[in-house]
Amino acid sequence: MNALGRHLLVELYDCDKEALNDLDLLRGVMLDAAIESGAVVLGDSFHRFSPQGVSGVVIIAESHLSIHTWPEFGYAAVDVFTCGTTVQPEKAAQVLIEKLGAGHHSIAEIPRGVLVAV
Amino acid sequence: MNALGRHLLVELYDCDKEALNDLDLLRGVMLDAAIESGAVVLGDSFHRFSPQGVSGVVIIAESHLSIHTWPEFGYAAVDVFTCGTTVQPEKAAQVLIEKLGAGHHSIAEIPRGVLVAV
Repeated sequence: MNALGRHLLVELYDCDKEALNDLDLLRGVMLDAAIESGAVVLGDSFHRFSPQGVSGVVIIAESHLSIHTWPEFGYAAVDVFTCGTTVQPEKAAQVLIEKLGAGHHSIAEIPRGVLVAV
Repeated sequence: MNALGRHLLVELYDCDKEALNDLDLLRGVMLDAAIESGAVVLGDSFHRFSPQGVSGVVIIAESHLSIHTWPEFGYAAVDVFTCGTTVQPEKAAQVLIEKLGAGHHSIAEIPRGVLVAV
């Protein structure tokens, strides 16, 4: 299939609840994940919510990574959206799975921009 | 189904190619879309690529919106990820469809964070 982008929807369950509430830790893990996948980081934006939870996005030259956490449920929703052939989004997902201590997870890949003419 | 988040994957085809390459226009449309959906905007980050294409993310209190454009193909990949009951992500998608002049489009909704205990 000819697709412009690869989009991994990563569901992380039974994670380390303290990690899911730690903005600095999450930002570091997300940047590590981006770099490990081979991406070029262009910028990032992270926010911590009250009483809990963090949202963050890393913009990369090849698209983006995002995370939203629900510490109270040990759950994080991660997206790894990449384009081009130089980035391996699976590697980013693996970094998140390991560093957030996910007890179980699922990864669904959605092709984006499926163009007949490409 | 009890899900923590609603994630719309929006594929926009046959868009206005000039619009897809105009960072300021795209940022305005994305912020309009977020506000129209009822979201609270916390921040944004947009980047223009050479020779063409724009990536941008709007962080909202209810998760995020993102866009990646390929002007050469008239295509944009949009994500609208929301949580809670006060936001209507379909409204954000509709703003993008209209303001980018999409000739055709598809919207797939993926529930995120489906927890047995919720």
